[in-house]
Amino acid sequence: MSKIPVMEIFGPTIQGEGMVIGQKTMFVRTAGCDYSCAWCDSSFTWDGTGKHLITQMEPEDIWTKLKQLGGSGFRFVTISGGNPALIKNIDGLVDILKKNGIQIGLETQGSKWQDWFYKIDELTISPKPPSSRMITDFDRLDEIILRISRQNISLKVVVFNDEDYDYAKKIHQRYSEIPFFLQVGNDDCSTTDDDQLMMTLLNKYSWLIDKTMVDDEFQNVKVLPQLHTYIWGNKRGV
Amino acid sequence: MSKIPVMEIFGPTIQGEGMVIGQKTMFVRTAGCDYSCAWCDSSFTWDGTGKHLITQMEPEDIWTKLKQLGGSGFRFVTISGGNPALIKNIDGLVDILKKNGIQIGLETQGSKWQDWFYKIDELTISPKPPSSRMITDFDRLDEIILRISRQNISLKVVVFNDEDYDYAKKIHQRYSEIPFFLQVGNDDCSTTDDDQLMMTLLNKYSWLIDKTMVDDEFQNVKVLPQLHTYIWGNKRGV
Ligand code: SF4
Ligand code: SF4
Repeated sequence: MSKIPVMEIFGPTIQGEGMVIGQKTMFVRTAGCDYSCAWCDSSFTWDGTGKHLITQMEPEDIWTKLKQLGGSGFRFVTISGGNPALIKNIDGLVDILKKNGIQIGLETQGSKWQDWFYKIDELTISPKPPSSRMITDFDRLDEIILRISRQNISLKVVVFNDEDYDYAKKIHQRYSEIPFFLQVGNDDCSTTDDDQLMMTLLNKYSWLIDKTMVDDEFQNVKVLPQLHTYIWGNKRGV
Repeated sequence: MSKIPVMEIFGPTIQGEGMVIGQKTMFVRTAGCDYSCAWCDSSFTWDGTGKHLITQMEPEDIWTKLKQLGGSGFRFVTISGGNPALIKNIDGLVDILKKNGIQIGLETQGSKWQDWFYKIDELTISPKPPSSRMITDFDRLDEIILRISRQNISLKVVVFNDEDYDYAKKIHQRYSEIPFFLQVGNDDCSTTDDDQLMMTLLNKYSWLIDKTMVDDEFQNVKVLPQLHTYIWGNKRGV
């Protein structure tokens, strides 16, 4: 038994955010999260509303499905959640992907450790700011960052307001050697008015840029939007 | 005499495109280009219309100006043009920036070589596709790519139409080991109707993504927009 609870598998599409923004990639989204962020944009992975979508899959079957959907047109797979770091068995999937020459991207909030983190090519740790209503366990985070600090990793904090911005700065200063990304938060994960959503998000992106540019305490930082929301709004599975 | 013809110095702002997209950076824009691309978005650097803006500056004076504008709030400087690769004296600026712990980004079309390329941290070579009406000298390009292939470089091709897309593919296949970026072209560099411009650019970005996602010959690629046009339209110096 090395099954993985899979929520959805889709692609090829682009990675819309973070350190590999724009990358052509397949997505494997796992079920379950130890957090319950106030603004979670994938709450269907943990709040019960997507329960009927969960399939327990062997790593080999996930690889078969990826090939079915993406053919030979991809070299990158993103594992997302929920929090994939809850799942020990992802190790098996990672090994199959590596064996087939596929690069792997993964994002997790930094609340749990897995040994297979060492094998991830592009690992993003994204601690959650106050607006999420989650509390960061900094001892745990310190330990995780220390273990993987020699890998190709990045830190990313989603910012909704001034308090989040201050939290982001604290994270950046605590781990100042790690490449740091600020990302605009999406307040409204349910609207289907894509044009309106985009204007709102662009305004917030502009606000975040303005703030960061005049802030001497953020000297080395990347400020990015979520590109996929500009293209597809809140639509899922693209 | 180690002067550099400078068009404008501005920032801090974000890098809107390519391998360091989102990066907080200062910009130094040099004057002059050996190309005259049909759709050049900085033609004022070479077509005479910006002649009155050109200042011959010593590297030390450029550094002073950068500090004046950016204070201690930046760790990254982007040198852009025109084609900065025309200017041997950029060597002196590069040395001053390195000495001060500043990372350097630079983009050039790959028509000219300079030894100071070796000292650039994030070097983008962006050969120009058919819609530019320029002809790529592939012998020259081969030679340049070969020399810098062990550095942290990327290739970027701006795509306006199907013919450009095919050209981009040819470049990607010729230098398949180099990280490759596809970028949406901006057809209309003069409009001041920012909302209209953004919708047009988003549609073209969407078109380019759709095309690339189903194309098995682009397995490993990043597809990106020009973020700054989403935020500032065609405005200069931001
Ligand atoms: S950590 Fe991520 S998946 Fe989990 S609740 Fe927060 S935003 Fe949602
Ligand atoms: S190479 Fe760049 S600066 Fe020169 S004409 Fe072409 S687009 Fe303009």
